[in-house]
Amino acid sequence: MEFYDYFRSSASFRVRIGLNLKGLAPGRHFIHLTRDGGQQFGDAFSQLNPQQLVPVLVDGDTVLTQSLAILEYLDETHPEPPLLPKGPAGRARVRALALSIACDLHPINNLRVLFYLKDHMNQEEEARTAWYRHWVGKGLAAFEAMLGHGAPGGRFCHGDTPGLADICLVPQIFNAKRFDCPLDGYPTAMRAFDACMAHPAFDAAQPSKQPDAE
Amino acid sequence: MEFYDYFRSSASFRVRIGLNLKGLAPGRHFIHLTRDGGQQFGDAFSQLNPQQLVPVLVDGDTVLTQSLAILEYLDETHPEPPLLPKGPAGRARVRALALSIACDLHPINNLRVLFYLKDHMNQEEEARTAWYRHWVGKGLAAFEAMLGHGAPGGRFCHGDTPGLADICLVPQIFNAKRFDCPLDGYPTAMRAFDACMAHPAFDAAQPSKQPDAE
Repeated sequence: MEFYDYFRSSASFRVRIGLNLKGLAPGRHFIHLTRDGGQQFGDAFSQLNPQQLVPVLVDGDTVLTQSLAILEYLDETHPEPPLLPKGPAGRARVRALALSIACDLHPINNLRVLFYLKDHMNQEEEARTAWYRHWVGKGLAAFEAMLGHGAPGGRFCHGDTPGLADICLVPQIFNAKRFDCPLDGYPTAMRAFDACMAHPAFDAAQPSKQPDAE
Repeated sequence: MEFYDYFRSSASFRVRIGLNLKGLAPGRHFIHLTRDGGQQFGDAFSQLNPQQLVPVLVDGDTVLTQSLAILEYLDETHPEPPLLPKGPAGRARVRALALSIACDLHPINNLRVLFYLKDHMNQEEEARTAWYRHWVGKGLAAFEAMLGHGAPGGRFCHGDTPGLADICLVPQIFNAKRFDCPLDGYPTAMRAFDACMAHPAFDAAQPSKQPDAE
């Protein structure tokens, strides 16, 4: 397997955690994302992924994109340890938690959106930061409330083993810290975050520990 | 099963299609979403879904939220006809197509985001419409390019039966049409859209045919 990654990408961070949990160590390729002239716009990478986004995982002839699709693929092809619980209700709970971040929070605060606000709507840094914190606050409040529903107990988001919900939560908390978002309103989510960061698969996946970190 | 729905919600539209494809007819509850004082903010519904979003599907004791998590649940509990192909590579392709809309396009154009642009960034209707069309264009161009990769042929996004990618595509095209977004640059996606709209499960799920349509 070959993995196309960028240390600061939250979606790549998710896949790094998943690979570590599964004990997989693909070949690594670092795509330095910058706004203009970034490596994501190069011909070779664009052909691999027309969305010009990381992460990309190549497994034999199969080119995989979209972090959650990659993680589901890894879970189907390398079932141990599982990233989703066994029963359909538990699986739906964990997927809903993961999607609440991957759909309803993360894309709105993505770099290309922040650039649009700056370039086309003349929003200064202060307004962009307020935007960022607003959606982090909305998203984490929803996540915290959802954690209170149908929880089986345990240190992580769903029981005593980390899974897809934890994988989405952790990079989002890193983002929130980078933008100094207040985090004291989310005690259950932060407990799960702390449990994750004590786990070597999460720790080794964090941005500052990647070979391409600046 | 009980289904909480709003005719204009794209995420609800996805679940309506999935329910129709599976031949399921849950009890229906219509949550009229409005900005202030909408039924989504009522105590009963907030307790059901702290995210205060539709769709919600209740199956016995299980409360399901997030459209893609609901659709995966339906596919696991009612496997026929399947919404995902059999092999992991095909499943990953279909999930990536679905997520490219559900994550990278739809949330950025959601109503609450458009309201933020209006209320907190003083963006007039023209600027908000330009924003909307910009992200539709980006998202559909990516979807169209992805359709060209790994396609097994067939009328729909992945073969000759409709699935999760089609379910996400169709409501997005309805949105694009509502905002007069140009659609001639996406011939493969529009061919799949036309095939879907000739299918009774998609046709019956469209907003204007719902009991709560205005």
